[in-house]
Amino acid sequence: MEQPVVGILMGSNSDYPVMIQAGRALGLLDVPFEEFVMSAHRTRERVEAYVKEAEGRGIKIIIAGAGGAAHLAGVVAAGTTLPVIGVPIESKALKGMDSLLSTVQMPPGIPVATMAIDGAKNAGLMAAAMLALSDESLRERLKKSRKEQSAGIQFKPSLPTPQGGTS
Amino acid sequence: MEQPVVGILMGSNSDYPVMIQAGRALGLLDVPFEEFVMSAHRTRERVEAYVKEAEGRGIKIIIAGAGGAAHLAGVVAAGTTLPVIGVPIESKALKGMDSLLSTVQMPPGIPVATMAIDGAKNAGLMAAAMLALSDESLRERLKKSRKEQSAGIQFKPSLPTPQGGTS
Amino acid sequence: MEQPVVGILMGSNSDYPVMIQAGRALGLLDVPFEEFVMSAHRTRERVEAYVKEAEGRGIKIIIAGAGGAAHLAGVVAAGTTLPVIGVPIESKALKGMDSLLSTVQMPPGIPVATMAIDGAKNAGLMAAAMLALSDESLRERLKKSRKEQSAGIQFKPSLPTPQGGTS
Amino acid sequence: MEQPVVGILMGSNSDYPVMIQAGRALGLLDVPFEEFVMSAHRTRERVEAYVKEAEGRGIKIIIAGAGGAAHLAGVVAAGTTLPVIGVPIESKALKGMDSLLSTVQMPPGIPVATMAIDGAKNAGLMAAAMLALSDESLRERLKKSRKEQSAGIQFKPSLPTPQGGTS
Amino acid sequence: MEQPVVGILMGSNSDYPVMIQAGRALGLLDVPFEEFVMSAHRTRERVEAYVKEAEGRGIKIIIAGAGGAAHLAGVVAAGTTLPVIGVPIESKALKGMDSLLSTVQMPPGIPVATMAIDGAKNAGLMAAAMLALSDESLRERLKKSRKEQSAGIQFKPSLPTPQGGTS
Amino acid sequence: MEQPVVGILMGSNSDYPVMIQAGRALGLLDVPFEEFVMSAHRTRERVEAYVKEAEGRGIKIIIAGAGGAAHLAGVVAAGTTLPVIGVPIESKALKGMDSLLSTVQMPPGIPVATMAIDGAKNAGLMAAAMLALSDESLRERLKKSRKEQSAGIQFKPSLPTPQGGTS
Amino acid sequence: MEQPVVGILMGSNSDYPVMIQAGRALGLLDVPFEEFVMSAHRTRERVEAYVKEAEGRGIKIIIAGAGGAAHLAGVVAAGTTLPVIGVPIESKALKGMDSLLSTVQMPPGIPVATMAIDGAKNAGLMAAAMLALSDESLRERLKKSRKEQSAGIQFKPSLPTPQGGTS
Amino acid sequence: MEQPVVGILMGSNSDYPVMIQAGRALGLLDVPFEEFVMSAHRTRERVEAYVKEAEGRGIKIIIAGAGGAAHLAGVVAAGTTLPVIGVPIESKALKGMDSLLSTVQMPPGIPVATMAIDGAKNAGLMAAAMLALSDESLRERLKKSRKEQSAGIQFKPSLPTPQGGTS
Repeated sequence: MEQPVVGILMGSNSDYPVMIQAGRALGLLDVPFEEFVMSAHRTRERVEAYVKEAEGRGIKIIIAGAGGAAHLAGVVAAGTTLPVIGVPIESKALKGMDSLLSTVQMPPGIPVATMAIDGAKNAGLMAAAMLALSDESLRERLKKSRKEQSAGIQFKPSLPTPQGGTS
Repeated sequence: MEQPVVGILMGSNSDYPVMIQAGRALGLLDVPFEEFVMSAHRTRERVEAYVKEAEGRGIKIIIAGAGGAAHLAGVVAAGTTLPVIGVPIESKALKGMDSLLSTVQMPPGIPVATMAIDGAKNAGLMAAAMLALSDESLRERLKKSRKEQSAGIQFKPSLPTPQGGTS
Repeated sequence: MEQPVVGILMGSNSDYPVMIQAGRALGLLDVPFEEFVMSAHRTRERVEAYVKEAEGRGIKIIIAGAGGAAHLAGVVAAGTTLPVIGVPIESKALKGMDSLLSTVQMPPGIPVATMAIDGAKNAGLMAAAMLALSDESLRERLKKSRKEQSAGIQFKPSLPTPQGGTS
Repeated sequence: MEQPVVGILMGSNSDYPVMIQAGRALGLLDVPFEEFVMSAHRTRERVEAYVKEAEGRGIKIIIAGAGGAAHLAGVVAAGTTLPVIGVPIESKALKGMDSLLSTVQMPPGIPVATMAIDGAKNAGLMAAAMLALSDESLRERLKKSRKEQSAGIQFKPSLPTPQGGTS
Repeated sequence: MEQPVVGILMGSNSDYPVMIQAGRALGLLDVPFEEFVMSAHRTRERVEAYVKEAEGRGIKIIIAGAGGAAHLAGVVAAGTTLPVIGVPIESKALKGMDSLLSTVQMPPGIPVATMAIDGAKNAGLMAAAMLALSDESLRERLKKSRKEQSAGIQFKPSLPTPQGGTS
Repeated sequence: MEQPVVGILMGSNSDYPVMIQAGRALGLLDVPFEEFVMSAHRTRERVEAYVKEAEGRGIKIIIAGAGGAAHLAGVVAAGTTLPVIGVPIESKALKGMDSLLSTVQMPPGIPVATMAIDGAKNAGLMAAAMLALSDESLRERLKKSRKEQSAGIQFKPSLPTPQGGTS
Repeated sequence: MEQPVVGILMGSNSDYPVMIQAGRALGLLDVPFEEFVMSAHRTRERVEAYVKEAEGRGIKIIIAGAGGAAHLAGVVAAGTTLPVIGVPIESKALKGMDSLLSTVQMPPGIPVATMAIDGAKNAGLMAAAMLALSDESLRERLKKSRKEQSAGIQFKPSLPTPQGGTS
Repeated sequence: MEQPVVGILMGSNSDYPVMIQAGRALGLLDVPFEEFVMSAHRTRERVEAYVKEAEGRGIKIIIAGAGGAAHLAGVVAAGTTLPVIGVPIESKALKGMDSLLSTVQMPPGIPVATMAIDGAKNAGLMAAAMLALSDESLRERLKKSRKEQSAGIQFKPSLPTPQGGTS
C-alpha cells in the first residue's frame, strides 16, 4: 500500500461517522491517507508525538476534527508548519457553535484552515486541492470530480432525501 | 400552459419540501411559475445562464431558497435588476441562523427581499403582491385570500396540530 | 410636486440618519416618496390610519424601519396587501439582532421583505425594482444605476474610508 | 360563572399546549379567565377590538403568547394601559430566541412583562400576584400555593421525569 | 413624605444611571418609591432582610436591576409573592444577553416580569400599571401620560438625538 | 460510612441523570459525597440552611447544577467562601446557553468554577483535584485515573457509540 | 521572597491589564504567585515545559487567561492534574463569546474551572479558596476579605463610576 | 517583478486595512502576490473573469476577504479547483458573525479554507504553507519565521499594546 500523505485525526471515536467522509473524499481521488483517534486533551502526548514525526514520515497535510472546546486542530497547528485543516464537529448542546469558534478563531501566526460544521468531505477535497498544486494528475482528477458533481445535480426538484444546508 | 412569471430556484433537492410552499401559494393565486434546482456553488454556470436569460424569457421575479452559507439569492441578485426574494432554509447544525445571515446581510446596492427561515409560503405571497401592483385582478385575488386567511383562524383554542412560530 | 408612490415610515426620529438612505436611493431614481415618523407602539392609531388610507392615496409600497422589538413592518404588513419592506435598525445593546429577528421571522400569510440591518438604501432599491416591473423607463434608470455602481468600484485597493460589511 | 378578569390570548391554535398552563395556574388560584386565539398579524382587527373593549368588560390583565416575530404582546400593550404579560413561545428553527427578543425588547413607554420561553405557568402566577395587590384572599391563596410548591420538591434525587430548565 | 409602595433595587452603584429612570417614571406619576443598592451575591443578607420585611413595610412591588449573571430579581422573587419586575442591565462583554437570560429564564413557579435590556423606564410604568388596577386616580394619570407620549412623537423626521431601539 | 466532604446540589429531580456523573467520578476516586435536590428559587430557605451549615458539617466543596436562569451555584457561592463548582444543565429551548451564562458570568468578588454544559463528571474531577492539594493519596489516585483514561482511548477509529463534544 | 504556589499564565502581553487582577487578588490575601506570558499556540514548548515542572516546583494551582480560540487553559489542564482555572479574555470581534466557549466546553475527563469573561479577580479568589481548604489562616483572611467586600457596598445609590455587570 | 502566485481579492476598499496583512505576510516570505478589489455582488463579472483566467495566469491560490453576507470566497471557490482561503471581515452591526457563517458554512463539494474574523495574516501564512509543500526553500523560510515568532513573545508580562484575541 502507498505511503499516506494526509493524516486524519479525530478527538474521539464518536467523531468517526463524520470524519469518515474526509477519507472517502481522498480515497475517491486516489490520495493515500491514514486515520487516528487522538485527543488534544486526553492523549496529549500521542498528539505531540504524531505531529513531531508527521513531516518526516511523509505526511504533507493534517486534517483534525473535534467538538466542543475543540482544541485539536489548533494544538496540531502549533506544532507544525504543514497545512492544518480543521473540522468543527457538531456538539450536543451548542450544535457546533462552540466547536466552530474554538477551531476558527486562531490567533495571528498559527493558521487553521477551517471547514463548515461537520464539513469533513470538504476537508478531504481541500487537502486534495493543496496537493494538486504540484501534482498535475491529481489536478485533473479533481477537475473531473468537480464536473461530475455539477452534472449530478438534478435540474427539476423531486422527492427529496433528508439532507443539511445547501446553496 | 401559461408563460411563467416567477422563477423559483433552490440550492438542492432537499430544499423542495420547504420551497414547494412558494409554488403552492402562487398557484392558489393563479400566478404561473417555474421551479428549478440549481446551486450557486455546485452548478454556478447554470445559475448564471438562468439569470441572464430570465428577464428576456418573461420572468419578472426570482425566488431563491438555500441553506448554510446560502449564497444563491445574493448571486442571483448580483446578476439582475429584477426583484429577488430570498428564503433561508433551516440548516442542520445552526438551525438556519447561518442561512438567514448569509441571505439578508447584503451590501448596499444589491437588495434581497428576505423571508423568515423556511418562509417559502410568504415568498410566494410577496411575489404576488409585487405583481399585483400592475394587475388589478391579481390584487383582488390577493385581498380575497387574505380575508379568507383571517376568517379561517379559530377564535377559541382547541387541540392543536404541531406548527411553527406564530403571532 | 409628484404624488408619492412609496411611503417610508420609521419608529422614531432617531432612525432618520439610517432611513434617509431609502429616500435618497428613490430620489436618485426619480421615484416620488413621503417620509413619516410613527411608532407601532407609541402612535399605534397613526400607523393604522396611515395604512388604511395608503392604497387609496396612491401609495404602492411601504418601507418600515424600526429597532429593538421592531414590530412596525409587521404591523403595517398586517393591515395591507401592498408590498411591505422592513429595515431592522441597529439597536444599542443587541446590535440589531433583536430588530432583525422581530422583522424577518413573520408567520406564514403576512410577508415582510426584510433588508440587512440598517439596509435602508437597499429598501429604496428594492421598492424601485418592484415599481420597475410595470415602468419601463424606471427599469432603464435602475439598470443604468446598477452599471454605474459596478463601474464605480475601484479595481486596486487604496486608502479606505470606514464602512460596513461588503462582499 | 364568574366574570373573567384575565384575558389569555395566543397567536395560533398551536400555542395552546403551552398557553393552557396559564389558565391552569389561574384556575387553581380561583381567578376567572378567558382564552382566545387571535393573531397580531392574521386577525389584526380582532385583536384591536378585543383590546379596545377589554377594560370596559372587566378584564384587568392581558396575557399574550406568540412565537417567531412575536408581536402580539407588544400590539396589545400599545392599545391599553392595563398590565400586559408576554409569553414567548418556542419556535421551530430558532428555539424561541426570536420570540423572546420580539417580546421583551419593547421601546421605552410601552412595557410588556415578559416571562421565560414557554413560561405560561408563570404568566398565570404573575397575573395572580398583580391581582393579589388588592385582594387579600387571593394573596393568601397565592402564599399557600407557594408554600406547597416548596414542600413538594423532593429532598433526595430519584428517577427523574423529563423536564426543562431548573434552578 | 409619603410611604413608598415600590422598592427599586440594583446590584451595584454602576447600575444607577440606568435604574434612575424607573424612579423618574414613578415620580412623574406620583407613585412613592425607595431606592437601594444591594447585590444578590455580595450583600446577600441585606437582600434577604429587605425582601422579608418589604410586604410588612407597605412595599407592594419590587423592581430589581442587575447585569451579567443577574440573579437579583430571581433571588428577590424567590423570597416573596409580591410582583417582582426585573431589569437586565447591559453588561460590558456580552451586551446584556447574559443579563437578559439570567433574569427572564426563570423556572415554573417563581415569575419575574422582565423588561428590555436597560428598560428601567418601562419597569416604572409596569409597576404603575399594576398599582393602577386598584387606584382609579393613578389609572387616569397613567392614561394621560400615555396620551402625551403619543402626542409628543414628531410626525416628520428631523435631526435626531442618539437613542436606542424603537418601533 | 465516611463523612461526606463534597456536597452535590441540583435544582430539580430532572437534573439527576446529568448530576449523577459528579458523584460517580467522586466515588471512583473514593471521595465521600452527599446529594440533594434544592432549588435556589423554589426551596430558597433549604439552600440557605444547607450553605450556612455546610462548612461546620465538614463539607469542603459544593457542586451545584441547575438550568435556565441557573442561580443555584451563584446563590450558594454568595453564602460561603468554600469553593463552589457550577454545572450548567442543558435547557429545553436555549440548549443550556442560558444556564451557562447565568452560572459563569459572576460579578467580581463571588467566584463560581464553571464546567461545560452538562459537565458534571468534570465537576467531580475538579473537586477531587482541589482536595488532592492536601491529600497525597488522593493525588495518586487522580493521576492513576488520568493515565487510565488516556490509555483507554482507542488509537484507530471504529464503530462509535453516540457521544457529545470531544477534542 | 516566598515560593509561589499559584502560576498565572496569559496568552499574550495584551492580556495583562485583565490578568493583573488575579495577582492583585492573591497578593491582597498574601498568597505568593508568579506570572508569565506564554501562548498555547505560539510558544507551545514553553507551555509544555512549564506545566511539566510546575508541580515539582511547588506550584499548586495554575490560572490561564486567553482570548479568541482560547486553548491555553485546556492545554495546561491536559498536562497536569493540578486544578486549572481558566479566564476567557474579551476578544475584539466576538466580545469573548469565542474565548468563553473555547475555555469552558472541555470534554469529560479534563476539567477547567472557568470564570466570567475577563473574570481574573475571581480566578485569584477561587485559587485562594482552594488553598484555604488546608490553610486555616488563609481561610480566615478570605472570610475577612469577603466581609469587607459586603461592607464596602453603598446602601444608597449615588453618582456611579463606570463598571461592568453586577448582581 | 516576479509572476504573482497568490491572488488576494477583497469585496471593498474598506476591507484593505485588514486584507493588507495577507500581502504583508506573503511579502515577508518572498511569495509574489497581487491584490484587487472586486465584489461578488457589485462587480460579479469581474470576479468571474478573474477566476476563469487565474489558473492560466499562474495563480495557484486565491485569498478572498469580505464582510456581511460574505459570498466572495464561496463564489470564487465555485469557479475554480484551486485552493481558496476565506477571510471573514468584521462587520459593523453583527461584528463578523454574519461574515464568518457566510464564509465557512459551505456545502459539501465546494471547500473554502476559512480563517478567523479579520484573520488576513493567517490567510497569507496558510497560502505560504500550501506552496511550501512543493518548495523546499519556502518551507525553510516558513519554519524560520515560525521560530522567530515564538522567540519574539515576551516571557514576563509588561505594559501591553492594545490587541485582539490570543491564546
